[in-house]
Amino acid sequence: MNEIKIFSPATVANVACGFDVLGFCLDSVGDEMIIRKVDKKGIHITHVEGFDLPLEASLNVAGVSALAMYETIDVDFGFEIEIYKNIKPGSGIGSSAASAVGSVFGMNELIGRPFNKTQLTEFAIKGEALASKCEHADNLAPALFGGFTLVKSVSPVQILEIPSPDDLYATIIHPQIEIKTSESRAILPKEVALSDAITQWANVGSLVHALHTSNYNLIKDSLHDVIVEPHRSKLIPHFNEVKTEVLEAGALGCGISGSGPSIFTLNKGLETANKVKETMENVYAKTDIAFEVHVSKINTKGVKAIY
Amino acid sequence: MNEIKIFSPATVANVACGFDVLGFCLDSVGDEMIIRKVDKKGIHITHVEGFDLPLEASLNVAGVSALAMYETIDVDFGFEIEIYKNIKPGSGIGSSAASAVGSVFGMNELIGRPFNKTQLTEFAIKGEALASKCEHADNLAPALFGGFTLVKSVSPVQILEIPSPDDLYATIIHPQIEIKTSESRAILPKEVALSDAITQWANVGSLVHALHTSNYNLIKDSLHDVIVEPHRSKLIPHFNEVKTEVLEAGALGCGISGSGPSIFTLNKGLETANKVKETMENVYAKTDIAFEVHVSKINTKGVKAIY
Repeated sequence: MNEIKIFSPATVANVACGFDVLGFCLDSVGDEMIIRKVDKKGIHITHVEGFDLPLEASLNVAGVSALAMYETIDVDFGFEIEIYKNIKPGSGIGSSAASAVGSVFGMNELIGRPFNKTQLTEFAIKGEALASKCEHADNLAPALFGGFTLVKSVSPVQILEIPSPDDLYATIIHPQIEIKTSESRAILPKEVALSDAITQWANVGSLVHALHTSNYNLIKDSLHDVIVEPHRSKLIPHFNEVKTEVLEAGALGCGISGSGPSIFTLNKGLETANKVKETMENVYAKTDIAFEVHVSKINTKGVKAIY
Repeated sequence: MNEIKIFSPATVANVACGFDVLGFCLDSVGDEMIIRKVDKKGIHITHVEGFDLPLEASLNVAGVSALAMYETIDVDFGFEIEIYKNIKPGSGIGSSAASAVGSVFGMNELIGRPFNKTQLTEFAIKGEALASKCEHADNLAPALFGGFTLVKSVSPVQILEIPSPDDLYATIIHPQIEIKTSESRAILPKEVALSDAITQWANVGSLVHALHTSNYNLIKDSLHDVIVEPHRSKLIPHFNEVKTEVLEAGALGCGISGSGPSIFTLNKGLETANKVKETMENVYAKTDIAFEVHVSKINTKGVKAIY
């Protein structure tokens, strides 16, 4: 096999209570990439479509993770990468993670899978760091492993795969505003009340238990964020209105996707997910903010070859 | 049935990472109680053995929880309670919880089990509050439900039962020093670093996942407390030495049991648990502090009738 076409999915990091550690994978939205073995050594990004991103490998997220892997293998050929980007950079649903994951997943397939997913995460972290200025894996892990993941540790990389109940659907709205990464970081407190931290880890433990036992009511009871959301939600116009209305429409929970501005919900069943989609659309339709909405089953496979 | 004899087990709260929410149940150490229906209405504590505790029901932990239940039932009889106390008050392995749970469990059995375990927890909380001056359930929950429990919420009571791997054994040492509750509370910070809180909830999520998947290595990786132990361990002489040596002897993890002074370990297999027992004994044998050590399989049943 000299060429592979892959689908690299969008992902939701944090999942309300699990700031910096939890994430899950979407299957209705993602990037496509073609990775091809070529005689010319090195990593060559030959085409980028969808958004304006650099072709220079060392300046491109997919290129940086590809280079990190390429440096560890001893081959007399190189790789061409074509990127068909559907996930808007800055939307908060793992655009850079999809890029970082896609290139190394595709290359690994072309050379006979010498690396496992944990090792691929290590390469992808280098690409992610180019975009986000720090090494984190809360979007990379679900993009690579699929389903729900818990990043137990980044150094060394230790990713836990948490089961996903069958009937769980995400609805996500991307209000097309820009939140500066610097601002979304600066707004977080350095210290938090011990009592809030206890509430948060009760919810994390409880969410993990709920996913293991397919207990939708407990998923609902666990999807609360008392630490980050009270601060970051201020940066997302109409967040509180969206949250109130989707919960009323039947969503199990609602929170900020990654560092925003996208807002995610989890829902039992496609019907509720679609109703929640309408509810979200109605809130933003009354404003002058453009938006995009996705409804997706949880993708339990992660990044994959497509034909 | 007019009389029941019950075993009410000792418990370990917090379990390293899960301050205020996690706990597990022991089966080799606990109190015995006899509860008996009598004509005379009310709650009558007729005998206390082992430690000096009040006979007046409203001043006795077992009596207060019994009264809380008694007030909600409409009966023309009363209950006598005999308490054979083995768990030393103030040892940090749920002495008051065992008392609070035992009376209401026994009474419920005698009147045909009108209450479920969540309701029994609500009564027992009243007794626990007499001893610890606050309503908490992190020892009550494992004493009532058995196994590992997560207290998702106290008001309303919501207890999650987390599975226990078959080959898990606890070794616990009780160095017989007194830690004042006021001191062990005052030493805790009101605020904690967000980065530490993230580490802690990654560990809580990871421990719950490890218990669901019987992953002993992951149990080991999750049993860390970066929030409370650094403060409270200062109140327990030789804590750091014990911890270093038991981990070397093969314990999966080691931490403070409840608010101390007992120190618990979790171990894979009885052989390791016994080796850890010796290791703990050796540390305190070199001091002038008296101690008691328990080795116990995780008790998955909780409080029970004995014959």
